Amino acid sequence: MKCTILSIGDELLIGQTLNTNAFWISQKMNEIGVDVIHHISLSDEKNDIISCLNDALEKSSIVLITGGLGPTSDDITKDVLCSFFGGKLVFNEAAYANIERIFSNRKHLINEATKLVAFLPDCCEVIQNKNGTAAGMIFTKDNKTVVSMPGVPYEMQSMISDDVIPYLKEKYQLSFIFHRNILTAGVGETVLADRLIDFEKNKDERIKIAYLPSVGKVRLRLTIKGDNEDELKAIIEAAKQEVVSKINEFIFGYDDETLEQSIGKMLLENNLQLGTAESCTGGYLAHLITSVSGSSAYYKGSVIAYSNEIKNALLNVDETILNEHGAVSEATVNAMINGAISQLNVDVAIAISGVAGPSGGTAEKPVGTVFIGVGNKQTSFVKKYLFTKNRERNIQIAAVVALVMLRKFIKDNYS
Amino acid sequence: MKCTILSIGDELLIGQTLNTNAFWISQKMNEIGVDVIHHISLSDEKNDIISCLNDALEKSSIVLITGGLGPTSDDITKDVLCSFFGGKLVFNEAAYANIERIFSNRKHLINEATKLVAFLPDCCEVIQNKNGTAAGMIFTKDNKTVVSMPGVPYEMQSMISDDVIPYLKEKYQLSFIFHRNILTAGVGETVLADRLIDFEKNKDERIKIAYLPSVGKVRLRLTIKGDNEDELKAIIEAAKQEVVSKINEFIFGYDDETLEQSIGKMLLENNLQLGTAESCTGGYLAHLITSVSGSSAYYKGSVIAYSNEIKNALLNVDETILNEHGAVSEATVNAMINGAISQLNVDVAIAISGVAGPSGGTAEKPVGTVFIGVGNKQTSFVKKYLFTKNRERNIQIAAVVALVMLRKFIKDNYS
Repeated sequence: MKCTILSIGDELLIGQTLNTNAFWISQKMNEIGVDVIHHISLSDEKNDIISCLNDALEKSSIVLITGGLGPTSDDITKDVLCSFFGGKLVFNEAAYANIERIFSNRKHLINEATKLVAFLPDCCEVIQNKNGTAAGMIFTKDNKTVVSMPGVPYEMQSMISDDVIPYLKEKYQLSFIFHRNILTAGVGETVLADRLIDFEKNKDERIKIAYLPSVGKVRLRLTIKGDNEDELKAIIEAAKQEVVSKINEFIFGYDDETLEQSIGKMLLENNLQLGTAESCTGGYLAHLITSVSGSSAYYKGSVIAYSNEIKNALLNVDETILNEHGAVSEATVNAMINGAISQLNVDVAIAISGVAGPSGGTAEKPVGTVFIGVGNKQTSFVKKYLFTKNRERNIQIAAVVALVMLRKFIKDNYS
Repeated sequence: MKCTILSIGDELLIGQTLNTNAFWISQKMNEIGVDVIHHISLSDEKNDIISCLNDALEKSSIVLITGGLGPTSDDITKDVLCSFFGGKLVFNEAAYANIERIFSNRKHLINEATKLVAFLPDCCEVIQNKNGTAAGMIFTKDNKTVVSMPGVPYEMQSMISDDVIPYLKEKYQLSFIFHRNILTAGVGETVLADRLIDFEKNKDERIKIAYLPSVGKVRLRLTIKGDNEDELKAIIEAAKQEVVSKINEFIFGYDDETLEQSIGKMLLENNLQLGTAESCTGGYLAHLITSVSGSSAYYKGSVIAYSNEIKNALLNVDETILNEHGAVSEATVNAMINGAISQLNVDVAIAISGVAGPSGGTAEKPVGTVFIGVGNKQTSFVKKYLFTKNRERNIQIAAVVALVMLRKFIKDNYS
């Protein structure tokens, strides 16, 4: 069953509003086995709405429209749909009662523009809006469905969950869809693809595989769709196991887990307290770690030593080390690890020092040079990297690589 | 000049990836006076790519495509465009040299799949990718332009800024568009709108005003578009001055300046060294401050005291204060300010302690309770806030509010 999402509003096209509605609706449709084939954002312009709607109805059975239902003059979606489906606007008592309820909560008086919102096409099924004034509308044509909803995210979301999904499930025979997400870090997508050449050749042809890279990480997504729920589940589960066996050492988690969460779990399981000492990443590593709710159970804190003075005063890095090797060096990062372990009184510590850029590079240590180390009281290892010329990116990659190194360190030394 | 943005990738249509690319590109096109008429997200499917491209070329002069350029089997955009424009793939030495450069930095070997990335259509102008392996491509047909770029945001962004915008400006006669961005913090958009009622009533009708809120900040954007460059500039400059005079105390900067940069400038001008002490924000404040290139000139570092033990050991917060008032209290934050000033040896310090949530709240100090303080050796002030129930949002707001408080502190005590 194919679906097109139309998002109406100039604010989307001038880059004022990010289209989170199409994203959210896509997730919900995917969960019930509806194929979203297009997202289209368009402006509040009659002819363009009609042209996009005709096109969408040609290519898909379900068209979900958001936006353009407000009380102001630029909102024309309701009128356009009403005439498109050959109806006329009539006063809807339930919709008006809903508006009265909303306004009495808000302690506002209902003005003329708002009253017009209660006039709705006589050729649609009305969805009452629990969270706002503009009603939703379901139109049908040749067994195809067109739903119009407000653009306000939480108003649209409750309509999709409470009204549209039950309606679609009842009306159409939807196929099953299953996904498995395998999350990897510290490896490029080409290396993963190389490992999976045989798998890709021999897999059940209904299985689709996607490589989705982000900074320092690649998400591998397997998808299968069809009508036999049990068979599909067995096939995708077997495929997942095969992929896992071929790339196991790069996997940090599955589905919606983050690298930070996976590391939190490992630290908890091994009863380890973590501390960090950051220079060029300037707190971004600490931020990633503490973005996980409950991280205080395994993370004690960090010294952000953005100056040599702090490296010396709070992390006990010897001035001779700083003078002889420089702040960006293996020796300094090793000393930062030891300083973090003793000063923060932790079991395991990460330390980072580098040249984030764009200034500060030298011939010997150009922008992007970063030393990253992990250690405990007994042992430590430090690696030198050369990342990019871009400051923001260097900070992000260094923090992700540090977490990947921490994973390896815990695996090698504890698990 | 009309433009369609095509975003290729199944991950968009199943709701796995939010389409920030179309949003970002729309902003950039808007800035140079190009009208984006449609965003279309579609899957990696040959016939659909061709159909959407034909449709886009019919309705617009510029088509910007992102995604589908990777080295894996699901990426077909390059092949489809090559045959659409009647060319063939040829080895591109510059692209290959770029791939070698990237891989030598990463210390990976180039595999066969990656080598294929250097084969590019002979019917396009190649845009070398400074930040990745997949090149961009500019195709032309009947004075229309089709640009294909990678879907990885920072790779695409540098191509748009450095290559595509200069290309479009050179090729097309774009109407003049001028923006003035006035950046405010620590004030809501309704307060700003109230101050600007008269301005909005009396302004030149060609001036458009937009209120663009983000966490803790509101960007006011004035826009004017037309053909007479000098006249437009004079009108928008006068409008900007009028707005500035009405909301001056909330303004921290203009155009692309960030709050962090504006604070960096103030610290440098007053020859002040800054340090921070963070609990619930977990390094996010330090990250914001150090996201500014050159921040080491005024920022010495931070103690992320995610446990009471660290607050005591590294920030000298008395155990009696922690026991009597709790970690989330005015007394503790005051002690953290003093600890940061002495331990980090700085002139000015910010301290934050709160309950980010979702757990950890009590009746007296519910989730979202955050104490933020700023001080120097002579004086300090601490304020208590109640933000939201959302952890990520609480961390972001607290850091932004802390920077707004620092601005005020420097203004009141130094400037």
